[in-house]
Formats: sequence, C-alpha cells, structure tokens
Amino acid sequence: MKWWGWGEEHISFTHDDKPDLAPFVRKHIGIDFYSGGASMVDLESIDLPATRLSAGLRAELVTAVGEAGVRDDRLDRVVHAYGKSMRDLIRVRRGDVGRPPDVVVYPRNESDVSKVVRAALDADAVLIPFGGGTNIAGSLEPERNEGRAVVSVDMSRLDRVLEIDDSSQLARIQAGALGPSLEEQLRVKGWTIGHFPDSFNHSTLGGWVATRSSGMQSDKYGDIADMTKAVCVVTPSGTLVTRAVPSTSTGPSVREMILGSEGRLGIITEATVQVHRIPKERVILAYLFPTFSAGLAAMRDISESDASPSVTRVSDSFETQFSFATKKKSSRLDQLTSDALKTYLRKRKGFDLAQMSLSFIGYEGSPSHVAYQRKIVSKIVNQHGGVSVGKGPGKLYDQKKFDTPYIRDFLLDRGGLADVSETATSWRQLEPLYDAARDAALKAFGDIGVQGWVMCHMSHSYHSGACLYFTFAFKPTDDNTALAEYDAVKSAVQQSFVDNGGTLSHHHGVGKEHSHWMTEDVSKAGVTMVRALFNGVDPGDNFNPGKIV
Amino acid sequence: MKWWGWGEEHISFTHDDKPDLAPFVRKHIGIDFYSGGASMVDLESIDLPATRLSAGLRAELVTAVGEAGVRDDRLDRVVHAYGKSMRDLIRVRRGDVGRPPDVVVYPRNESDVSKVVRAALDADAVLIPFGGGTNIAGSLEPERNEGRAVVSVDMSRLDRVLEIDDSSQLARIQAGALGPSLEEQLRVKGWTIGHFPDSFNHSTLGGWVATRSSGMQSDKYGDIADMTKAVCVVTPSGTLVTRAVPSTSTGPSVREMILGSEGRLGIITEATVQVHRIPKERVILAYLFPTFSAGLAAMRDISESDASPSVTRVSDSFETQFSFATKKKSSRLDQLTSDALKTYLRKRKGFDLAQMSLSFIGYEGSPSHVAYQRKIVSKIVNQHGGVSVGKGPGKLYDQKKFDTPYIRDFLLDRGGLADVSETATSWRQLEPLYDAARDAALKAFGDIGVQGWVMCHMSHSYHSGACLYFTFAFKPTDDNTALAEYDAVKSAVQQSFVDNGGTLSHHHGVGKEHSHWMTEDVSKAGVTMVRALFNGVDPGDNFNPGKIV
Repeated sequence: MKWWGWGEEHISFTHDDKPDLAPFVRKHIGIDFYSGGASMVDLESIDLPATRLSAGLRAELVTAVGEAGVRDDRLDRVVHAYGKSMRDLIRVRRGDVGRPPDVVVYPRNESDVSKVVRAALDADAVLIPFGGGTNIAGSLEPERNEGRAVVSVDMSRLDRVLEIDDSSQLARIQAGALGPSLEEQLRVKGWTIGHFPDSFNHSTLGGWVATRSSGMQSDKYGDIADMTKAVCVVTPSGTLVTRAVPSTSTGPSVREMILGSEGRLGIITEATVQVHRIPKERVILAYLFPTFSAGLAAMRDISESDASPSVTRVSDSFETQFSFATKKKSSRLDQLTSDALKTYLRKRKGFDLAQMSLSFIGYEGSPSHVAYQRKIVSKIVNQHGGVSVGKGPGKLYDQKKFDTPYIRDFLLDRGGLADVSETATSWRQLEPLYDAARDAALKAFGDIGVQGWVMCHMSHSYHSGACLYFTFAFKPTDDNTALAEYDAVKSAVQQSFVDNGGTLSHHHGVGKEHSHWMTEDVSKAGVTMVRALFNGVDPGDNFNPGKIV
Repeated sequence: MKWWGWGEEHISFTHDDKPDLAPFVRKHIGIDFYSGGASMVDLESIDLPATRLSAGLRAELVTAVGEAGVRDDRLDRVVHAYGKSMRDLIRVRRGDVGRPPDVVVYPRNESDVSKVVRAALDADAVLIPFGGGTNIAGSLEPERNEGRAVVSVDMSRLDRVLEIDDSSQLARIQAGALGPSLEEQLRVKGWTIGHFPDSFNHSTLGGWVATRSSGMQSDKYGDIADMTKAVCVVTPSGTLVTRAVPSTSTGPSVREMILGSEGRLGIITEATVQVHRIPKERVILAYLFPTFSAGLAAMRDISESDASPSVTRVSDSFETQFSFATKKKSSRLDQLTSDALKTYLRKRKGFDLAQMSLSFIGYEGSPSHVAYQRKIVSKIVNQHGGVSVGKGPGKLYDQKKFDTPYIRDFLLDRGGLADVSETATSWRQLEPLYDAARDAALKAFGDIGVQGWVMCHMSHSYHSGACLYFTFAFKPTDDNTALAEYDAVKSAVQQSFVDNGGTLSHHHGVGKEHSHWMTEDVSKAGVTMVRALFNGVDPGDNFNPGKIV
C-alpha cells in the first residue's frame, strides 16, 4: 500500500491516452498538467515520534500474535497513522503523521484478537482496528494528544471465507478479507456478495460493517447494513456473537449497534452476510437525459416501478462533461460525443447539450428478468425525454469503476485538490439539496478566491430517496493554505447537506471528519444515546476514542 | 377494549357455523365446547391496590394534559395493567392484576408528552407507554415490587397522519394511531403503509416501532424496522428527532436503538414511514403441497427467484387439518375438501392427504406484474409437487386474518389454553428447528400429563430464512395449575428455538416473557451492550424498568 496515496505502488492514473482531459482541467480548475508538480517528503525524512509501547505490553502482544505479528517499523507506523482522506494525504505528503500508532499487530485469528484486547486493556492502551486503510472520515487516526500506548490492530490475516450455507444463501467471512479476495473465494463456489464500493479493491468486510458501507449495486443487493445478518466482535466484556437470523424483534438491535461503530465498541472479527448466485446476465446500459432534473425524476419513478435495477446512476451536466473529457482516443464513449448523436439529440429530441445528463442503469438476473426490467425502465426513461445509448459506455464504466480514487493522487502531484462529499435525502429534497450544495461549494471557492469545480451524480435509489455524490476540485492558493482552504470547501458542502434535509454521509461514515455534524444529523438526544452506549460498553475509552462523538 | 380479553366487547369467535370444529377440538385437545365453562371474576370484585400517586404529581399531570386526561378509575387501571398475553388473560380473569399503574394519562400531543415526562422524572415516577395494549410479551406490566408511582401513558389521542410526502412516498404519523385509523387516513389519499400484523385492528404505529413488529405482507413492504425512516421520541434528555433519509452511514443507528426499545429509552410520539400507492391488483392464491417439507422448499426457492410476492405462507399438516376443521358450511374452503379434489390429489398427484400442507401466496402490483410473478411461482410450486387451488381460500384468509386472537378467549371461556410462539431462522435450520419445537411441545404435554395440540406455519420469507409460527393448545389439569403448565409448554418451545439457531421472537418483542432467553439470543456481551444503552440513557430507571434485560 502506498503510504502517500491510494492503492498499490505500480498503479496510477494517466491522462496520456485522454487528449481532452488536460485542456478541460486547465480551463475549469486552473491546474496545468504540464507545469511543475507538488513536492512530497521522503518516507525516511518523516519525523516519527518514539514508540510509547512498554516492554511489558510488547511482550504480551508477542505472546498473543507471535513475534512476526508485532511491528513497529517506520513504514508500518506511517501507513497505519491515517486513512486516505484528502486531509490525510495532504498531511502525510508534508511529513506530518500526527500521532502515529506505537505498534501494529497482525492477529491470525479471533483468539489472537481476544488476547490482544485483553493485553491492551490490562495495560490501559488504546486499540484501533485497521482493515484496508481506505477510510476517508478520519476513523483510523489516534487522538493527537493521546498519552497512552496506541495499538493498531491490522486485520489482514483474517482473510478467509469460513463457510457458505448454500440453502440459506449466507456466508461466514473473516473481517479482514479484502473485497477481491472474498469475492474470489465466493466466485469459485458460484456466489457473489454483491458489495462493490469504490474502495472495493483495498477495503475489507470488517471495514464495510464498521462504517455502514454501501456499494455500487446496492439497489439490488442492499447496503452492508441490510446484507449483514450476524456479527462476531471482540468487545471489552467478551466476544459478542449474534445469530444469523433473517429478521428478529429482539431490540434494540445489537447487530445494528456494531454497524457503523468504527471500532468504538470492539473489534469485528467475522460477519455472516447474504450471498447471491452469480447472475446469468449482467448488463449496464447508458442513457442520456435532457437535464439532471429529468434524470432524477426518471430515477424516482423507477424506484416506484415494478423494476428493480442493480445500479441507478445519473450525473449532472458538469459530471457528464467531465466524463466526456476523460474519453480515450477511439473509445466506447466516442459514440456519445459523435456529431451524428449530437445532431439527433439537439434537432430531434430538443436537448440543450450543455445541460445533458449521462445515466447508467444496471440489470442483473435471468435473461428474461433483465428483459422484463429493461422494458419497464425504457418506458420511464422515454417519459422523461431520455434516450438509451447502448451497452458500450456501461461496459467502460464497469471496467473503470474502481479507478477514480487514483485521480486524487494524480491531481495532488500537480498541486490540485480534489475530494468527494456525499449524502442521502428524500426524493423531495434531492433537487433543493443539490442546488444548495453546489451554491455552497461555489461560494466557498469565491470566498477563498480560487477557481473551483464541482460536479455531482445521484446513485443508490431507495423507495423514499437517494444518494447525491459530489466531487469538488480546485487549485489552492499555496501549500501552506491548502488544508484550511480544503476545510472551508468541505465544511460548506457538509453544512449544506444538514441544512437541507440530508444526512452527514450516505456511506463514508462519521469518524473525525463528520462528527461536527452529528448533533444536527441525529439531534442532541441522539448524540446522548450514542455516547451512553460507547461509555457504558467501553468505560476506559480504550477503543478508538474520539471517533463519531 | 375488553379488560378480560381481545378486542371489542361485541366481537367474539363462534363455532356455530363451523360444524367440524367442536369434534376436532374434542378429539385432539380434549376440550368440550358444550360442557361447563371457566369462571371469571367481575371487574368490581377485583382487589385493586390504592393509588400511590402523590397529590403533587397528580397536579403536575393535570397541568400537563388537562383534567380529562388524567384517569385513575377502576377500568382504566385494570386495562392498563397488562397486555394481552395468555399469562395476562389467565391472571386478569382470576382477578390478579399484579401491580397496576397508579394513573393513566392521555396526552394530546408531543408537547403534552414532554410535560408528562418532565413531571414524572421530577417526581421519580415510572413511565410506561401504552399504545393499543395488545402486547403479548409482558412489555406493559409494571414491576410487581415497584414502590414508585407508575404512570401509564396512553397514546390514543395522538392518532393523526400529519403529512404525506407524495414524491418521497413517506408519511409522518403520530405514534398513537391505530392500524385501521392510519390506514384509512392514508387510503383516502391513495396510499397504504402495507403493515398488517395479526393485531392490526387494535395496535398502534408506536407499538409496532417499539416492538419491531412485522406484518402479513412484510415480504413486499418490509418489517416495521425497514419501513420506519425516522422517529420522534421524548427521551430523558430531551426530544430525539432523526432524519427521514432513505439510508445513512451515521452509526451506530439511533433510529435502530428506538426500534424494539419497548419504552426503555423514551416515549415514541411520531414516526415517518414509507408508504406505497395502493396497488392496482391484489390477489392471494392457495396452493396445496404434498408435505410441509415440500412447501418449505418451494418457499425457499421463491425467495431466491425473480418473483417478489407480498405473502408467502405454508402451514404444516396439523394446521392444514385445523384450517379444514374451521370451514363453514358451504364455504370457499369446501373446494379444498371436496372428494373430487381429494381423489385427484391422491390418485394423480400421489399425495398422502394426512401430510398435505396448505399454502397462501400473495401478489400485488400492476396486473402485468402480478401475472409475471404468478408465472414464476407457478413453475416453482410445480417443481415441488404442489398444485394451485385458486383464489377462493385466499379471499377467505384475507377476510378472516385478524380474527385469530378471538379464538384464545373462546377457548379460555371453555377451560382451554391456546397460545403462540414464533421465531425466525435460516432456511437451513428451518426444518430441524420445526422438528425440535414440535418435539419440545409434545414432550412438555407428556411431562405435564395433558393432551395437547401443536401446529405451525411458515410466514415472512427473506433471502436467508423465514419465520416459523407455532400455535399450541391444551386443557390444563385444573385452574390452579394452569399458569405453571402454560409456562412449562411455552418455555419448552422457546428453549427449542434458541437451541436450534432461532431468535427468541421474530415479531412479538422481548418484554418480560422472553427476556430469559436474551443472553442465548445475543450473547452475554450483547446483553451488556443493551444494558449499557438503557442505563446510560435512563440512569434513574424511570422508563418501563425491567423489560428486555
């Protein structure tokens, strides 16, 4: 894993094969791909504080997980100091690693985790579970003034699918399993979990559960909160085991207390999740709508219809233009920007091309079920003035869907900041919130005095609403002001969410980054309840203190 | 409301028009409909303890809700002393009302509820929210040794649908609204909530939320936990208001802490729930399967299919026989017991009629969607040796679905005990659990030395499992041993649930009745978490103490 960016060392974003991108970015964000890059420190030059781990606790940890499983080398401590938020990347590239963990332990199984927890509690140390390290809400970062020893518990060795119950369509999976690994272990037996967040390649089941994750096909498969039927968690008062029952009136739901708990209640070691037979057919179709508003209305009507697509996604005109700018030479997106199509849309369909919105809708199941749904959706798309533009762009989207985070590093290398903020709200509030969030971002750019870009797509349709996913980018005034300017934009967008009926995040969790908006999201009494739960379960504040509330 | 039984005074079960029932019950349960009935005390003869309400608190409550809203007459205190469990009915009919509330208050709105809560907390009184009073898990009963004043908060005046958001398909509804009232308020605007528990006619939205209720059409509409998008709750630390967003990563979910909280965290005043346009078509078809096992296998396959019926239900052979015994003269069930059908099933389909299982499957939506689903289901039913027997029995089931609880009173009047226990488990565990629960009930009957009957149906299909709903009946040795014998049977069945991978209840909640199995259901660490939440939010133990844990 890159200590300074997303994913693996040998993978990075390139614009070499995308001739329209550099001019687009230069024009709209003011970043020049060809002029001087940003500076970054060397790993060796980072000023790493001495470990506070006592010899006694170290010995206990070695007893728990073996000598090879206890690491405090430079790279391990730096990688485990943060997640991968924009704030994290800005800081780590400067050599600011905050208050890094004193040691990283790699348990091999649940028993190891129990021993680690016992040892840490006995020594009044802090425990921070670490899955794939992709968190962008600050959930992995120790408190800056933490005086106790901090133990990062890396779950990567607990990576197996333990059992598949064919009859119940349930799989028991260890929490440290990364997306591709668990999906491959399921695939060879004919199953899929159907959970594909942007971070899929580098995030773990335990991380998804701990942050209430949502995936690209959640319209069909549900969010992780829906698909997780049981959890196994090492808590301060022993190992929590819930039952993999399809539903229960046993309340308040203990399973739901673990979902989104971000390490505050214990360390998740296993989850039992719904799995599905790999569908016979899977297709993602692209559509174009005359406006974002028309696209949203169509998605709403689809959510009320008898169709149940696996993916519903529509980009605003700005994201649509950006998508077109990323097209490769002679790529499948070509058909979307051909003169013939443009003429047809303008002349025959009355499109204003500057307002046009690109949409993807996915279908899965038996060929007849896919056909049945396509027919229903097609009618709705028509009613809203949209047109189908075939499978080509959808295939491209499907292949490239996990690559987006690499663009952040690419821009950072060139002195630009790009980040995302997303929320969910009711269908009624969707457009007012969209307008408010755009205005808030643009006002923030103006106040700072920078050129900025903001674009958005709707994804994840539900019966009563959807997720709006914003991406914003700008070139900060200089390196010293970058973080403050980032804060100003990010805060303005987040504030517009809660001011307009949205939640603080649809699928990125709370962590430190969003905890400021907890009271507005769940009210003062709600914060009291969450705090009561944390304090009661973890009176010593040893489990990932400071996160969420 | 009857103080001694279910529902309204003028409605009761009759067997006059069901000629096969009396012989069936005499043969299998040993209860003679025509010999002497059971005794019951008069309301006036019940020994009601003096109220412990202080003059000071009474004055505060009058200030809060008005003089007319503060009641401590005999009928009010007796009705609010219990729910409607078999244990409650046995006791109240004897004149044992336990430790009844000292006063019943009827707030008119949320502001009244806040004032009641404030006054009660200031006086260190106990608050027990009361919806329709149909709870069968002991959730409404004050602790027998409670020394503080007990205030029952009857929510019946908060009975309005406050707002319908057509675009988002959401309705904001007051917690005290009874099923028929809220459904009628929605119906006139073209909407339905789609939540139809057995108790529908006499239970409230707040009660459904507080006990994690589930309805007969939950296969389509979801359990109350799925359809509740936001809650408003007066808690010890102020009014909790969550946002009606379709999904969120803000965890742990405060909304989910309220679901199933049974008054332990506050008094629910409002919920925002998903609503649906009333479907164009709605049909319930009956099917016969050669065995319960074949019926279960078909339901499992339907849950994995592209069909999404609103109702999936299959009775074991014993419940099937009981259903046939309840048929009226020349009723729609006639066709199911005609000689022609019997001959066809035996000769052409190879059925052993004693093993036959009756099933109902419901379909809702546009006519084309209903047809699409029926076709898929029909194929699966065929594969499992089942046959469709048309719409007639389904119509009857649909009309009579809320009448079942009246049979308990009818039997009690005749000296018989009949009750229900239900659970949910994975598809794999369904048959082992079914066998174990039947064995446990029969063994309990044998140990007691009574003749008994146990029957079961599967309802509520999910992706990974289903609910099993058991009804048991027997004639106790005598009035004095009735409660102990009931306990023995009920406990044996419940124990078989948790011993075989089931939860303690799929949709009846925990209360006092099921709290004994909490540790087995959610493990010791899970109980610690629930207790931490309750203690932290309500340190004075004023909110419905003693329930759940």
